[in-house]
Amino acid sequence: MRTQSSHGFLPKLFALCIVTASLLGATHSNGPRVNGERLNATMEKMKSFGRSESGGSGRVAYSPANRDALNYLASLMQDAGLQTHVDFAGNLVGRLNGKHALPPLMLGSHIDTVPNGGHYDGIVGVMAAIEVAQSLHDMGLVPDHPVEVVVWSNEEGGKTGSRSLNGSVDESEMALPSLGSKSLGDGMVFLGGDAARILENRRDVGSIAAYLELHVEQGALLDQRDLSIGVVDGIVGIRRWNVQVDGFANHAGTTPMDQRQDALLAAAAFVVAVREEAIARPGRQVATVGRIHAEPGAPNVIPGNSTLSLEIRDLDMDSIGELFARLQKRANTIGSDTGTHFSFEQFYESPAALTDTRISALIAASADSLQLKYEHLPSGAGHDAQSIAPLAPIGMIFVPSRDGVSHAPAEFTDPVDIGNGADVLLRTLLKLDKQRWSISD
Amino acid sequence: MRTQSSHGFLPKLFALCIVTASLLGATHSNGPRVNGERLNATMEKMKSFGRSESGGSGRVAYSPANRDALNYLASLMQDAGLQTHVDFAGNLVGRLNGKHALPPLMLGSHIDTVPNGGHYDGIVGVMAAIEVAQSLHDMGLVPDHPVEVVVWSNEEGGKTGSRSLNGSVDESEMALPSLGSKSLGDGMVFLGGDAARILENRRDVGSIAAYLELHVEQGALLDQRDLSIGVVDGIVGIRRWNVQVDGFANHAGTTPMDQRQDALLAAAAFVVAVREEAIARPGRQVATVGRIHAEPGAPNVIPGNSTLSLEIRDLDMDSIGELFARLQKRANTIGSDTGTHFSFEQFYESPAALTDTRISALIAASADSLQLKYEHLPSGAGHDAQSIAPLAPIGMIFVPSRDGVSHAPAEFTDPVDIGNGADVLLRTLLKLDKQRWSISD
Repeated sequence: MRTQSSHGFLPKLFALCIVTASLLGATHSNGPRVNGERLNATMEKMKSFGRSESGGSGRVAYSPANRDALNYLASLMQDAGLQTHVDFAGNLVGRLNGKHALPPLMLGSHIDTVPNGGHYDGIVGVMAAIEVAQSLHDMGLVPDHPVEVVVWSNEEGGKTGSRSLNGSVDESEMALPSLGSKSLGDGMVFLGGDAARILENRRDVGSIAAYLELHVEQGALLDQRDLSIGVVDGIVGIRRWNVQVDGFANHAGTTPMDQRQDALLAAAAFVVAVREEAIARPGRQVATVGRIHAEPGAPNVIPGNSTLSLEIRDLDMDSIGELFARLQKRANTIGSDTGTHFSFEQFYESPAALTDTRISALIAASADSLQLKYEHLPSGAGHDAQSIAPLAPIGMIFVPSRDGVSHAPAEFTDPVDIGNGADVLLRTLLKLDKQRWSISD
Repeated sequence: MRTQSSHGFLPKLFALCIVTASLLGATHSNGPRVNGERLNATMEKMKSFGRSESGGSGRVAYSPANRDALNYLASLMQDAGLQTHVDFAGNLVGRLNGKHALPPLMLGSHIDTVPNGGHYDGIVGVMAAIEVAQSLHDMGLVPDHPVEVVVWSNEEGGKTGSRSLNGSVDESEMALPSLGSKSLGDGMVFLGGDAARILENRRDVGSIAAYLELHVEQGALLDQRDLSIGVVDGIVGIRRWNVQVDGFANHAGTTPMDQRQDALLAAAAFVVAVREEAIARPGRQVATVGRIHAEPGAPNVIPGNSTLSLEIRDLDMDSIGELFARLQKRANTIGSDTGTHFSFEQFYESPAALTDTRISALIAASADSLQLKYEHLPSGAGHDAQSIAPLAPIGMIFVPSRDGVSHAPAEFTDPVDIGNGADVLLRTLLKLDKQRWSISD
């Protein structure tokens, strides 16, 4: 009996506290707000779809848990007055018609996770967007623009859902494996899409008025500086190379130190140089060697070959090129010093996607109106927003990630921060609704 | 017809050249010599046992090719007047009784190779020892000491045959895999040994008057300096460690350069430090990192853990310890600088085995008597001789390896150098036969 009683009492106390906090907040700032308590309750519910053994999320793209969660979200969207459908790529779209025949304002993010990932990456943005729609509904507020809330499919496996809108996904990709057990094509069909018609998912440039995405930072900057909101300047561009170092394999006992052509020594000197060059100039660029391999890989053989990965990220693609050129120069010097030879093969490029400065200004103004501390920052990670950047002006709002942890069960964002982020999303949407921009402005 | 004719003519011309060279050599120096032509013919014959597809040797320990080659060698030994038997460890022993009841002078090396190895490593020493016995036989020369010529089993897989004499091989090792398809125990039986009686193969300290081994250098020093003979000061000691570097795995896009705990960056700085410290002091010590691994090993994740191997070789075990201590200190500094932690676990130690300076002086005198240029040097590689070092004074003679290539099909030693080495082996044996040393002198 005591247990049951406390079960009833504590949630009520908790709810009372939140309501009180909400009222206190309201005394500091006027204007529309979402229902943070309701939002965080749906966040909690989402944890049940594909919870992993370690308490994280194993809701990989196209899994049954992914589908079940989408069904839950469709019902939430319908409750919020949105008309729902699943598009060809398996994206769940909820649409609210506006007062005028304008291109839609789009809000979106994703709910698929990496294997044994967390409960916040992507999910916060989706749940906040639905909460924004529900809040509009509650307020009886019909915007000028149509509003579309989109749950993109397979973000973690290559942003397939959002990329289908810019036409960069074709049939050839359908046979590729996903992070789960299905191919991309089979996965789309499993979610209610139609892989054979993937090209029809393309939208025209200018057909979307603007795109907004709320996301957890996946870095520690906001958390460390005790900030509520990050105004994202853009999503960094990425270039990745395979680096091959050719030396000469030899006996580690019989080859004197001055006669070696040690491919691992050269690779190691290069790894050190990558860091030196990355920090040699101011800016937020990052350069990483995450993978290394030495052949033949025995303790008693001087490595004759070594391979490593190189990744550089920056908001400015030209700066990436300049840093890479400096690293090539360093590699040449290291090669001369060690009797080895470096070669570079780029295997991946993702162009930087800048956010629209006008939208960023509206985000900042919304944060100001809520008396929330914010800072401008780049997004070091990729997001669905970059897929929409060729089609429409984009904006991104970050909320803090505790200790910057991401893609792991320990990923966490405070419910208060989630509520604040959704408030900023709501107010930014309402400000955007009064604009008449296009991407060509 | 022309082809057949040239087949008959060229070998005759070649033989004539060798005889002429031999006669020219004889005008420069007096004293006994082996028959270099005969020796190199048996070297050629040995290439047929287990020749690999690439033209190298795949005569791994305990293989049919290994056994067939031993049968051939037993017949050569018998032709040279040696009494042959296979001991418990599968070593082929050929014995010549001496004039006096003295402990034997022992000559030995091995004929097993690494997979796709060469035709010289080990084989040169065995064929030269048999040629020395044949030369004694031809000269009708009966030494004071008995002479034992030994073909050690499984050198490449752990010096099992030679180690059985010092008692460091017991039954527990018999189930271990060899480089071929058999366990060590089954392999010994296959060669005619008796694995169950392996401990009986042990010999007492002082029961061998001296041990001599001729071997290819497996390094490039003699070849580069145009020397005929290396007088080996000792076989270097070896210590090997697994090095673990613990950092913190994180997102390569969202983690600024100044907030990383990059385990691969730390490992790379350590690899560079290993070389710096190894060459910081004079000497022939070598230090090598041959193996490296970074976790999780993705281009877009900062490695949280890294493992590498560390090997140090030196003739002086104390110097190995001092170099290691300096490297531990460097690792501590690197760890502080990078927010990582290093730990070291030694997994292998092979003590240094010094050769007997009196024997080395006899080798040098023998080379002088043949007007052969020589230099003193350490052996960076391990040899069967080190197994005998606890039992008897040892001496080692090196002949050049072209370009220092070893454990590969391209391994090559010039026939002239092989003949010179065998001459030095013969003369050193005859000088030793006049000594009455023991290991306790």
